[in-house]
Amino acid sequence: MNPEFIDSLVTKNTTKIVFLIMDGLGGLPSGKNGLTELEAARTPNLDVLTERSVCGLLDPVGYGITPGSGPAHFSLFGYDPIRTTVGRGLLSAAGINFPMSERDLFMRVNLATIDANGIVVDRRAGRIGTDLNRKICVKLQTEIDLGADVEFFMEPEKEHRALIALRSDSLSDNLTDSDPEATGKKPLVVKASDPSAQKSADIINTLLEQAKIILSGEEKANMILLRGFARYRKFKSLYTRYGLSSLAIAEYPMYQGIARLLGMDVNPPTGSIEGEITSLKENYSKYDFFFIHIKPTDSRGEDGDYESKLKVIEEVDSHIPSVLKLNPDVLVVTGDHSTPAALASHSWHPVPVLLAARTCRPDRVKRFGERDCIMGGISRIPMMNLMGLALAHAGRLSKFGA
Amino acid sequence: MNPEFIDSLVTKNTTKIVFLIMDGLGGLPSGKNGLTELEAARTPNLDVLTERSVCGLLDPVGYGITPGSGPAHFSLFGYDPIRTTVGRGLLSAAGINFPMSERDLFMRVNLATIDANGIVVDRRAGRIGTDLNRKICVKLQTEIDLGADVEFFMEPEKEHRALIALRSDSLSDNLTDSDPEATGKKPLVVKASDPSAQKSADIINTLLEQAKIILSGEEKANMILLRGFARYRKFKSLYTRYGLSSLAIAEYPMYQGIARLLGMDVNPPTGSIEGEITSLKENYSKYDFFFIHIKPTDSRGEDGDYESKLKVIEEVDSHIPSVLKLNPDVLVVTGDHSTPAALASHSWHPVPVLLAARTCRPDRVKRFGERDCIMGGISRIPMMNLMGLALAHAGRLSKFGA
Repeated sequence: MNPEFIDSLVTKNTTKIVFLIMDGLGGLPSGKNGLTELEAARTPNLDVLTERSVCGLLDPVGYGITPGSGPAHFSLFGYDPIRTTVGRGLLSAAGINFPMSERDLFMRVNLATIDANGIVVDRRAGRIGTDLNRKICVKLQTEIDLGADVEFFMEPEKEHRALIALRSDSLSDNLTDSDPEATGKKPLVVKASDPSAQKSADIINTLLEQAKIILSGEEKANMILLRGFARYRKFKSLYTRYGLSSLAIAEYPMYQGIARLLGMDVNPPTGSIEGEITSLKENYSKYDFFFIHIKPTDSRGEDGDYESKLKVIEEVDSHIPSVLKLNPDVLVVTGDHSTPAALASHSWHPVPVLLAARTCRPDRVKRFGERDCIMGGISRIPMMNLMGLALAHAGRLSKFGA
Repeated sequence: MNPEFIDSLVTKNTTKIVFLIMDGLGGLPSGKNGLTELEAARTPNLDVLTERSVCGLLDPVGYGITPGSGPAHFSLFGYDPIRTTVGRGLLSAAGINFPMSERDLFMRVNLATIDANGIVVDRRAGRIGTDLNRKICVKLQTEIDLGADVEFFMEPEKEHRALIALRSDSLSDNLTDSDPEATGKKPLVVKASDPSAQKSADIINTLLEQAKIILSGEEKANMILLRGFARYRKFKSLYTRYGLSSLAIAEYPMYQGIARLLGMDVNPPTGSIEGEITSLKENYSKYDFFFIHIKPTDSRGEDGDYESKLKVIEEVDSHIPSVLKLNPDVLVVTGDHSTPAALASHSWHPVPVLLAARTCRPDRVKRFGERDCIMGGISRIPMMNLMGLALAHAGRLSKFGA
């Protein structure tokens, strides 16, 4: 089902929906007991909740598809992840809350080190500090000159990462990257993938030539590598589509950025899972929909650290009673995708989900885990259809047809 | 899968398919034992049947979508319920077997009471009797004059309900309702939603002015309220699509109407579930496909009457041996949607289904109930794909591809 079909059925009420998202939640059996991270974790609170929930498995994008964080989150919020593509540059811009305009072209920047022959020897410029990054951005912002028609903006992110925005008429993102994505190669000349992008390619190649000269005196960060060209794009907000005023409680710029692109308010970082739950409580009266993003499940999965990922899940479990005290009309606990420690990377495996609501039809699942959820009443469904289910259980979808 | 894909594979044979549809069958746990209506009902005959059937859960329209009876039944018969929309006026016309033409515009009528200021004080005119309704329809039929180019037809339904058909060239149903759907308001002026509908809006507003004058002497039914404008639309029949000669055994005009729109013959009402089963037996030699519609499961669900809904299911169960004696090649038992007594309304929850046929691959489900069906071999599928399964099990679909 096209997830936008539900939009025409939306009605408003005063119910509250909470999405508690453990990034990379899904796992694989590991270690001596043959259990996944979630199966092995002691989760007494989630298990009690499971008994009165309906469970299942979600496919973020499709069978066998390993999603990046962008498509996985779009899917969670009911946006077709294949049609709703978003370039890395735009995610970066939204992540640092860059004041966008419709004439903007964004790109993700790596400060990098090249040798005397112009060969990339370190794609991350020795992971220089954010302070030096900031100084370099100011320098380029001051000295780059692309002519009267093109505004240039450069903003630092953490370590060696930065954002560039170009603002002009008729810019295109149909461009190849300058980042060779490997050392031992020269930065690539940016090419237009169609004739209408030639002007943009020319501007960016001029920018790269100027940057190389301006940074030639730097010890480490003597070049910039560009990738993820993305024009400004406007997305329908959660409010426009579902009538939901929404708050994102997320610690990392990328997830804050996705939330901003979808019109959510964004809570300032709190520094801990406990802080995030406290923010939920403090803001509970002010919004209809809450997206709580728990990052460390994914980070520990990416590290290949089974035990630590399991511990993060147990920490989240310990906060479930606090969430339940708020008595949300619909509480969804799931992930955006799987990040099995056994693979130390995102994967295509479906993600366990539980949905608790007064109107749910409980199944026979007694414990929140991948293999238990196979027997759940939600069964295995596309993740992009989760939001429709949540809205239905919140009484926010009217009947279709006579 | 697009449900029309199967049409090109259809072959004919002499097999018989019976769809036993308990309207609103799906439920929610209620009462002291935490079981749904179907789970709590004593259904020894269905349970024995389940052991040699394949079971599952059907989504009438999509995840989270609560369907009206129209889309739910289209889905049951293999018509995409989102693309196959049908307005209330057309369902009403089909329900009373109005002799339609391609130039017709139909609308659902409520006889209503307005006060001296023209404000609606009763949208159902005190639920006047059908006899008075009939007299008012004759009066309006005689006195309404919309000019030489527009034919006017008015037919009574039960109590305060009626149908109006206008017959003329280039009528449009892209119109807003006159029924304000609430008391304390004046009837609304009908507006064209696009310029090509202006002529139709003008005709209908003239009709409303005339009706107000003609009915001004009536004590209760002194106004008509119009909604559900729908032009005539032709649907492919079950015979055209599947080669099935079909009989609908249904007690209520709406379901008879849907069946007529899909080219089924319609059995006269019998007044009881037992009567419907008797009609099945009497007509069994004459058709390939039988749609038996059991209304009271839905009615008792809508009443919020858990115990009575359960009793209706038990009554249906008692007739299963009679159906099995006919030895149908394919017997499907399901509902068109869920109507949990706990919600006293239609809902979005998937509907349990069993399919019994010599060719089915039985699963391990031992009892016909919502939670048991989660484990069924059909799993959870879109309802619109059920008909394809039924045809396959009846040996009526040929192989696809070399």
